[in-house]
Amino acid sequence: MLENLDKYHKAIIGGDRSVLAKAITLIESTLDGDEDQSARLLTLCLPHSGNSIRVGVTGVPGVGKSTFINTLGIKLIKEGHKVAVLAVDPTSERSGGSILGDKTRMNELASEPNAFIRPSPSGGTLGGVARKTKEAIILCEAAGFDVIFVETVGVGQSETAVSKMVDFFLLLVLAGAGDELQGIKRGIMELADIIAINKADGDNLPIAKKVVADYKNALHLFPPNENGWVPYVKTCSSLTGEGLEDIWEIVREFKEKTSESGYFDKRRKEQELYWMLQTIESSLKQKFFSRPQVVQELERVKAAVSSGKMSSFEGAKCMLELV
Amino acid sequence: MLENLDKYHKAIIGGDRSVLAKAITLIESTLDGDEDQSARLLTLCLPHSGNSIRVGVTGVPGVGKSTFINTLGIKLIKEGHKVAVLAVDPTSERSGGSILGDKTRMNELASEPNAFIRPSPSGGTLGGVARKTKEAIILCEAAGFDVIFVETVGVGQSETAVSKMVDFFLLLVLAGAGDELQGIKRGIMELADIIAINKADGDNLPIAKKVVADYKNALHLFPPNENGWVPYVKTCSSLTGEGLEDIWEIVREFKEKTSESGYFDKRRKEQELYWMLQTIESSLKQKFFSRPQVVQELERVKAAVSSGKMSSFEGAKCMLELV
Repeated sequence: MLENLDKYHKAIIGGDRSVLAKAITLIESTLDGDEDQSARLLTLCLPHSGNSIRVGVTGVPGVGKSTFINTLGIKLIKEGHKVAVLAVDPTSERSGGSILGDKTRMNELASEPNAFIRPSPSGGTLGGVARKTKEAIILCEAAGFDVIFVETVGVGQSETAVSKMVDFFLLLVLAGAGDELQGIKRGIMELADIIAINKADGDNLPIAKKVVADYKNALHLFPPNENGWVPYVKTCSSLTGEGLEDIWEIVREFKEKTSESGYFDKRRKEQELYWMLQTIESSLKQKFFSRPQVVQELERVKAAVSSGKMSSFEGAKCMLELV
Repeated sequence: MLENLDKYHKAIIGGDRSVLAKAITLIESTLDGDEDQSARLLTLCLPHSGNSIRVGVTGVPGVGKSTFINTLGIKLIKEGHKVAVLAVDPTSERSGGSILGDKTRMNELASEPNAFIRPSPSGGTLGGVARKTKEAIILCEAAGFDVIFVETVGVGQSETAVSKMVDFFLLLVLAGAGDELQGIKRGIMELADIIAINKADGDNLPIAKKVVADYKNALHLFPPNENGWVPYVKTCSSLTGEGLEDIWEIVREFKEKTSESGYFDKRRKEQELYWMLQTIESSLKQKFFSRPQVVQELERVKAAVSSGKMSSFEGAKCMLELV
């Protein structure tokens, strides 16, 4: 297998998409031996990664994320980019278990040699799914993909995790009638570097313009970002392609400005440390909460705490005595 | 000391403020013996706690939190309430180490027999400071205080912690000129159950009215709260007392509505479980990260990860092997 690893590594660097797909499958495997292998493969690929822009794309179902990525992706490939599309979607309860499941909406992009599309790892905890996507980014970059889209459904817990693995966060909303954000989780708007009002075409155009003004006013009241970036609000149409040029120009401007100021690299380093600490913490927790004694006692203590028989800190003390 | 505990307990239930103050000092102590004592005292007081409304108050320095609480507190005491004011402020670097340090702004309230004012526990981590404040709430309630204000400076990490120990969250902003939220951390606006535009008096009145309209428009774009509560925006003046009546009426409406729907109790139970799990997790982390081997290795691994020599997950693996 070690010999295989070297072959994998060389093929990935060479841009071989089918080996890239196999390597991601290896990473997603939870078998012990596979985990060692993937760690080694990642270390081999790491020096070839990083040369990219990582863009998170979120929005409620129906807002047109896949069509948006499809149209923008084709455009970028025509300009000479290599485009990878990944997804974080831990809600495996949904049919198929992952977004991008209906690749039909990305049919055109999927048939491009310079595109790589991969659905969300299925099942597992958010932490696990996010970690695997984070690792897949490294492999895609090593394979020469310089634009990485990470798609997520804006209704769950995944957005914070995705915001910690991308450079730029795009929130797609609809030019609807006042209830544009229905279903979007609170807090997501504050993660956005750009809010794109999608389906701003035909009859929707007038209302879309009003919605832009509303969002601009709202963002005005928000405190500034730590990097000094003021989020944009733009209209676009994945159908006609209108506005996508402008949006990508903004992504480029963001990368340029934050690279110059040093924020771009600083943030990526912080993200790496974040994932390291995050992984350590979740592993410590998982070890503790899977002890048979802890499992057995936890329900009793939880009941006592939530019924007010025991203070929360006394409850914690009881549990920690089991270590 | 056990005998003392019983005396403490009885005196607290009897509403003795000086014993209450001593008991909070006991809780804030980090001596081993004291910790056992405080755990017991809390268990004794727990059945007498809970009959209150807990209100978080945040806003940048200078917005007038203390004056606001002073004026509102006096009003509530006149109506027959007993008012306790606590604070969470882990930034002990600031002079004095705690907000409420300048009690002068609460002079009037402080001299009321039915008021109890306590500055933030000094020093320590946010988790530690927050935990102690959470426990002080129990003691204050057992002593018959039925309105608990928890004050925090809206520029740090404390707001999320405070939002997990109160029923209602009030964000105080200034009727300034467009930069009302300068300095307020991102995300805090979304925690607010009410935004109160303070210092809406004299020359400020016209601009305050405009600011109300701006915030109302902005909140319109926010996704709804999980409890269905739509945050209010109101003007007030801590100086003249104008608007405080209305604001308290809203707090009462909130308590009534959420009590009827069952959300009030449900949320308090969730908060107890949150603090229990939070305490377990931070204790596990603290134990791990204070091991000499871990301390020694962490810097090396961090450097390797942030310079891209090691992936974040490989870094985590290295560290976890030290367990």
